[in-house]
Amino acid sequence: MTKIAVVMGSISDWPVMQLAVQQLADLGIDCERRIISAHRMPATLQSYGEQARERGIQVIIAGAGGAAHLPGMLAANTLVPVIGVPMQSQALNGLDSLLSIVQMPAGVPVATMAIGRAGAKNAALLAAQILGLQEPQVARALQDFRQTQRQEAQQSEQEL
Amino acid sequence: MTKIAVVMGSISDWPVMQLAVQQLADLGIDCERRIISAHRMPATLQSYGEQARERGIQVIIAGAGGAAHLPGMLAANTLVPVIGVPMQSQALNGLDSLLSIVQMPAGVPVATMAIGRAGAKNAALLAAQILGLQEPQVARALQDFRQTQRQEAQQSEQEL
Amino acid sequence: MTKIAVVMGSISDWPVMQLAVQQLADLGIDCERRIISAHRMPATLQSYGEQARERGIQVIIAGAGGAAHLPGMLAANTLVPVIGVPMQSQALNGLDSLLSIVQMPAGVPVATMAIGRAGAKNAALLAAQILGLQEPQVARALQDFRQTQRQEAQQSEQEL
Amino acid sequence: MTKIAVVMGSISDWPVMQLAVQQLADLGIDCERRIISAHRMPATLQSYGEQARERGIQVIIAGAGGAAHLPGMLAANTLVPVIGVPMQSQALNGLDSLLSIVQMPAGVPVATMAIGRAGAKNAALLAAQILGLQEPQVARALQDFRQTQRQEAQQSEQEL
Amino acid sequence: MTKIAVVMGSISDWPVMQLAVQQLADLGIDCERRIISAHRMPATLQSYGEQARERGIQVIIAGAGGAAHLPGMLAANTLVPVIGVPMQSQALNGLDSLLSIVQMPAGVPVATMAIGRAGAKNAALLAAQILGLQEPQVARALQDFRQTQRQEAQQSEQEL
Amino acid sequence: MTKIAVVMGSISDWPVMQLAVQQLADLGIDCERRIISAHRMPATLQSYGEQARERGIQVIIAGAGGAAHLPGMLAANTLVPVIGVPMQSQALNGLDSLLSIVQMPAGVPVATMAIGRAGAKNAALLAAQILGLQEPQVARALQDFRQTQRQEAQQSEQEL
Amino acid sequence: MTKIAVVMGSISDWPVMQLAVQQLADLGIDCERRIISAHRMPATLQSYGEQARERGIQVIIAGAGGAAHLPGMLAANTLVPVIGVPMQSQALNGLDSLLSIVQMPAGVPVATMAIGRAGAKNAALLAAQILGLQEPQVARALQDFRQTQRQEAQQSEQEL
Amino acid sequence: MTKIAVVMGSISDWPVMQLAVQQLADLGIDCERRIISAHRMPATLQSYGEQARERGIQVIIAGAGGAAHLPGMLAANTLVPVIGVPMQSQALNGLDSLLSIVQMPAGVPVATMAIGRAGAKNAALLAAQILGLQEPQVARALQDFRQTQRQEAQQSEQEL
Repeated sequence: MTKIAVVMGSISDWPVMQLAVQQLADLGIDCERRIISAHRMPATLQSYGEQARERGIQVIIAGAGGAAHLPGMLAANTLVPVIGVPMQSQALNGLDSLLSIVQMPAGVPVATMAIGRAGAKNAALLAAQILGLQEPQVARALQDFRQTQRQEAQQSEQEL
Repeated sequence: MTKIAVVMGSISDWPVMQLAVQQLADLGIDCERRIISAHRMPATLQSYGEQARERGIQVIIAGAGGAAHLPGMLAANTLVPVIGVPMQSQALNGLDSLLSIVQMPAGVPVATMAIGRAGAKNAALLAAQILGLQEPQVARALQDFRQTQRQEAQQSEQEL
Repeated sequence: MTKIAVVMGSISDWPVMQLAVQQLADLGIDCERRIISAHRMPATLQSYGEQARERGIQVIIAGAGGAAHLPGMLAANTLVPVIGVPMQSQALNGLDSLLSIVQMPAGVPVATMAIGRAGAKNAALLAAQILGLQEPQVARALQDFRQTQRQEAQQSEQEL
Repeated sequence: MTKIAVVMGSISDWPVMQLAVQQLADLGIDCERRIISAHRMPATLQSYGEQARERGIQVIIAGAGGAAHLPGMLAANTLVPVIGVPMQSQALNGLDSLLSIVQMPAGVPVATMAIGRAGAKNAALLAAQILGLQEPQVARALQDFRQTQRQEAQQSEQEL
Repeated sequence: MTKIAVVMGSISDWPVMQLAVQQLADLGIDCERRIISAHRMPATLQSYGEQARERGIQVIIAGAGGAAHLPGMLAANTLVPVIGVPMQSQALNGLDSLLSIVQMPAGVPVATMAIGRAGAKNAALLAAQILGLQEPQVARALQDFRQTQRQEAQQSEQEL
Repeated sequence: MTKIAVVMGSISDWPVMQLAVQQLADLGIDCERRIISAHRMPATLQSYGEQARERGIQVIIAGAGGAAHLPGMLAANTLVPVIGVPMQSQALNGLDSLLSIVQMPAGVPVATMAIGRAGAKNAALLAAQILGLQEPQVARALQDFRQTQRQEAQQSEQEL
Repeated sequence: MTKIAVVMGSISDWPVMQLAVQQLADLGIDCERRIISAHRMPATLQSYGEQARERGIQVIIAGAGGAAHLPGMLAANTLVPVIGVPMQSQALNGLDSLLSIVQMPAGVPVATMAIGRAGAKNAALLAAQILGLQEPQVARALQDFRQTQRQEAQQSEQEL
Repeated sequence: MTKIAVVMGSISDWPVMQLAVQQLADLGIDCERRIISAHRMPATLQSYGEQARERGIQVIIAGAGGAAHLPGMLAANTLVPVIGVPMQSQALNGLDSLLSIVQMPAGVPVATMAIGRAGAKNAALLAAQILGLQEPQVARALQDFRQTQRQEAQQSEQEL
C-alpha cells in the first residue's frame, strides 16, 4: 500500500517535485503523485485531506509557490504529517512561498523544508525518516544513503 | 439584506477588524461578522465561500495573519470579490501576512489592503466603493467621507 | 460603453499589462487602455481620475513599478475602485512596487494584486467579478473560466 | 519509555520551548528536556544526536535562535526526525533563526516550524502526529485536540 | 522671502518633521510649513507643486510614510529640488516609506534622506547646503554647525 | 568652470554612471569625472572632498555599491551637496548599496537616488535642478527636458 | 602597551560597546577606547587608522550603526585587523548597519560580528583569539572562558 | 608549516573559495584546503576543529551556503580565529548564508566576510593581516598589495 503522497499545486511545480519522487524511489519507497491546486480545486483539496489517513497515507509532501496555501490547507484537513516544500517563485525567489508555508498559526503544523530543489529532496528524506521509525528496511536505506553522501563529500576533496 | 461580510481567522483579529465594521457603519452599511479559521474550520470556510453569493453577499472582507490562508481560500470558493487585510503579525510585523495574501497565483484574485489598521479601514472603503457602483446613497456617503477627511487634513495644519 | 480602464505608467509595462487586456477580452469585456505616467504627466493623471466616473468607468486597473504612485494617486482622485498591479522592477524584483501600492494610508484604498504577470491577469478577473455583481453574462463568463481552469489543472495530472 | 526530546540551545529559550512541553503533556505525551548549546557544548550535541535513536527517542524538537545551528547539527547526527523551532531573536525578529534552520542543504532535513510561540506548540503537535501513526491513543488525543480548538474558534464568534 | 518649504502628509508626521524646522531655525533659515496629503488633497498637492517656484520656494522638504507619494508627486509638479523624508511606519518600520520615496523612475528625482528623525534633520541640512551655494551667511552657519558637532563628538569621549 | 563632479568607486560603476554624465551633457552641463575608491584611495577621497568647494564644484554625484562609503565620506568632508547613486550589487541587488548610502546619521546628509540606472540619470537631473536655481539656461533646459519626456510618454500610447 | 582599541562612532554606542571593553577586561586584556565619528571627524578617523599600527595597536574593534562607515574606513587606512560591530539601529534594527559593514568590496576586509550586544562581546573574544596566537596567557584565559560558559550552559539545565 | 586552512562545505563552493586560495598564494602564503560538510561529515568537522590548533593552524577560512553551519561549528570547536565566507545561495542570494554565519550568539565569534567572491578574497586578506602581526614578510606583501590596488584604481580613471 502506498504510504507517501507527493502533491503539488501546479504542473509547473513538477520539475522540482519530481526530485522528491526520485529520492523516494532511490530509497525503495513508492508514492502517489497528485496535482491539487488549492485555489482552483479547493473541494478536491478538502476531500483529499479528509480521506488521506483512511486511504493509508502516512505522510503527505506538498509543494506550492507564491501565496502557497496547499500545504497548510491539507494539514488543516488531516492528522497525517504534512511536509511543505516552498517553490522558488518568480518575483520574490520563494520568500513568499516560504513564509506562506512556515508561518502557520498554533494548532496546525506544516513541516517546512528549504526553498526549491534541496527542499524537495529533503521532504522525501524526512518522509522516509518518519516511515523508518516503523519500517527497518527504510531505516537501513536511509543509513546507506547517509553513508553514501558522506563518502561522496569526502571523495570530492580530491577535485580541489 | 446584508451585502458585506467581515470575516476573520481568529478572535484576536477583532481589535483590528472592528475598524472595518465601524467604517462600514459610519457609511451607513450593514455587515455580517464571522470568525472562520481557515486552519481550524476548513469545512466551514468552504461552505461559507460556496454559499456567499446566493446568500446575497456582494463583497467579503477577510482579515488574517501569519501564513494567512483565509482570504485566498475564500476567494477560491466564490466569485464574490474578496478583500484581504493582512494582520500585523508578532515576529515579522505582517510581512508574512501580506505576502501570503497578495501573492495569489493567476486565476484567483484577492484585493489586498495595507497591513493592519489602515488596511481594515480601507477594506471597508473599497467594499463601499464597489457597492456604490450600484447604490447612489453609498456613493454619496463616500463623497461626504472624502470631503470630511480632506477638511480634517486641511484643518490640522493649524496645529503646526 | 467601456466600463474598465487599463492604465499603466510606461510603455515598458505593456508586455505585462496586456495580459489584463487579454484576460478581459477572453471574458468578453471591452476596456480602454492608457499610458499615464504619474511623474511625467501628473496633470493628466489628476484629470483622468476626476473624470473617470462620469465617463462611465467602473473599475480602473493601474500597473506601475518602482516608487509606484499611479494606482494610489488615481485612487486619490476618484471613487471608482482602483486595482493596482505591481510591476517586477529591475533591482528589487517588485518589492518596491508592491509596498508603494499596497501600503496606502487609511482613507484611500487600492486593491493590490500579486507582482507581475499573475497580478495583471488577476486584476482583470477582479474587475470582472465587480462587474459581474451587476451583469449576469459577466458572472457566467467567470463561472466558465473557473470551470475551465479547474479542468485544466485536473488534466495536467496526466503529465506527471 | 520517553520517545520525544525537547532540546534548546539556551535557558533563555525555555519560556518559549516550555509551550512545546506543555502541549505534549496536554496530549498525554512524556518528553525529556535538555539544554544543549550547539556552540558551547558541541561534543555533547554530537553524542546526543548519535545516541538518540538507540535510547528510544523517536522525534527531537530543537529550538534555537540567531545563527541557529542546533536543529541542523542534531539532524546531521541522527536519522530520528528533527523538528526545528526558530526563536524570535532580538534584532532581526527571528528571520535569522528561521533561515538558519529551514535552508538546510539536500541530504539533511529539518522540519521547520513558525517563529516563536506558535512554532513551539506546533512542534509538539507534529511530533504527536508522527507518534500517532503508530499509537492509537495519541491519534485520538490529537483528534480531540482538533475538535476542541474548532469548537473554541466557533464559540469565540459570540464575542464579536 | 521664505525659500524653504517643509511639507508633510499628515499631522502625525509633525513630531518628526519639526526637527527639520528646528534645524533650519538653528541655522537662521525661515521656512513655511504645510500639511498636504497626497491622497486626501491631491488637487492642493498639484497646485502647490506648480506654484512653488514662482512663489520663491527654492527647496521643498517633504515627509511622508507608508505608500509615501507626497515627495514624488511634488517633484513631478515642480523643478524645485525636492528632499524626501521617509517616516518610520508602524508595521514595516519605514522600509515601505523609504522604497516609495527613493525608487523614483528616471526623469523625476527625489533627494531621499534616512528614515525618521535623522532624515528630518538632514533634510534641513541639505536644504541649507543648497541655499549656501548662493548665500554666504548660510554657508557660514553650516560651517559653524559642522564644527560644533565635531567638537561635541570629541568632547563626548570624556564620558567613556 | 566645471561645477558638477561625477565620482565613482570603481571603473566597474562606469557603465551606470556614464548615464549621469550623458544626461548632464544633454542638458548642456559640463562635468568632471573621477574614480575615487573610498577603500583603496581614502586619502584621495578626503582631500578631494575638502577641496571640492574651493575648486568651484557645486554638486558632487557619487556612485558606489555594496558597503558603499564613498558618498557619505565625501559628504563628511565637504559642505557641497552630495548626491548618492546606489549601484545594483551582485548578491543583494543594491539593497546593501542603498542602505549604506541613505541611512546617514543626523549631521551629514546624502541626497540618495534610486538603485542603478534610473538613479544615475536622476542624479544628473537633481544636480541640474540645484544649478538651475542660479542659472536660467539650466532651468530652461530642464523645462524642455520635462516637456520632451511628457510628450514621449503621451506618444508612446500609440504603441498600445 | 595597549594592543586593542575599541572605537565607536557615537557616545550613544557606548552602552553596547562597553560589553566589549568588559569582556576584554574579564580576559585580562587592556584596551584604549575612542569615539571617532566617521562623518563628523573624518580627518581624525584617517590619521587614527594610519597611525594605529606604529602605535602598537594589533586589533581595532569598531562599532557603528545605520550607514556605518567607521569600520570600513578604518580598515581602508590600516593593515591592522578591524572587527566591525553593527549597532541595532532604530528603524531597521541593524540590518542597515550589518550590510554597511559586512558587504565590503574585495581588497579591504572587515571581520563582521552579530548585530548588537552579542556582537560586541564576540568582538572582544575574536580580538583575544588573535592576540592569543602570540600570547599564551591570553590563550589560557580564553580556554578558561570557554570552559566556564560550557559549565554554565550545562548547569542551567537544572532550571528547566 | 601550513598556518592557514581553507575549508568549504561542498565541492560546489570551490569556484568561489579558490579565490581565497589564489589570494593567499599571491601573498606568498601556503594553505591547506579541505571539504568538510557540517551536515554530511559532522564527526570530521568536530575532530578537525579540535585538532586545528595543535596542528599549527592559525586561521581557518570557512565557506558555506544556505543554512551555513560550518564556520560557526568550527569556531565552537577551536580557539583559532575562524573567518566565515557566505556563499551566494540560489534562492535567497546569500542572505540566508550571511545571517547563518554572522548572527552567532555571544561566546563564539565568526569573522564574517561579504557574500561571495569579494568575501572569499577578503577572507584571505584578513587571514594575512592576522599572520602579518607576527610575520614581517606577510605584512610587507600586504603593503605591496594595497599599493598595487590603489595604483590600479587610479590608473583605471584613464578609461573613463
